[in-house]
Amino acid sequence: MLDQRFAASVHIMTLMAYHQGDLVTSEYLASSIRTNPTVVRRLLSKLVEAGLIESFKGKAGGVRMAKPAKEISLKDIYKAVSNKALINCRENEPEKQCAVSCSMKEIFREVASGLETSSMNYLAKIKLSDLASKV
Amino acid sequence: MLDQRFAASVHIMTLMAYHQGDLVTSEYLASSIRTNPTVVRRLLSKLVEAGLIESFKGKAGGVRMAKPAKEISLKDIYKAVSNKALINCRENEPEKQCAVSCSMKEIFREVASGLETSSMNYLAKIKLSDLASKV
Repeated sequence: MLDQRFAASVHIMTLMAYHQGDLVTSEYLASSIRTNPTVVRRLLSKLVEAGLIESFKGKAGGVRMAKPAKEISLKDIYKAVSNKALINCRENEPEKQCAVSCSMKEIFREVASGLETSSMNYLAKIKLSDLASKV
Repeated sequence: MLDQRFAASVHIMTLMAYHQGDLVTSEYLASSIRTNPTVVRRLLSKLVEAGLIESFKGKAGGVRMAKPAKEISLKDIYKAVSNKALINCRENEPEKQCAVSCSMKEIFREVASGLETSSMNYLAKIKLSDLASKV
């Protein structure tokens, strides 16, 4: 399952890329995503922190991309807003009498971690500009 | 999140590979995974159906691999027991006034489907024999 925060943030960033550097408001973003502005503001502050967007306060304020859309990848967005691995697995306690059971946790961790790296490499190749061009 | 059925099935298959062709019982498999034999039997029947294992009935019966461990990949196991995509995303209804909102569903489907293909390619490269050698 792709993280909902990730999906909403990709939506936010695609909107900004589509508006090519114009300031957009969190109310506008929230109405496009159909979520509430508080959720959007929480994500925006993480995207600011990661250096992907810049925020301007005041009446005519809003947010915009901090760099060109072709320099921002989906991995950058994922890392900015998700604090958990894309791929993870629940871990059962092993049956201590069984060699295979005792090894499975470590074996599965390796599989999950390889899958995570492979997925992040994939997301790193997709740039925000690729998505904005599909709108 | 890796599917629990996938994790249990990888455990089952690793156990069989470790026992190199000897018949094992669903009770033994269940005790190693620490789950109940009904869950194991349900997975076994899917693995039989996919041609990955063979099952022998009767008092001295049990299951064993139907082909060498180096010819079975984690993708084979995933496809045998999971009927859903590894990567998927909830879909919100779009805000119809907004071009970006209307495109996001399709854009996100493409990302999820590319990620799915990339993950399956990764799992296809890992053979059961690789896992069994780590026990």
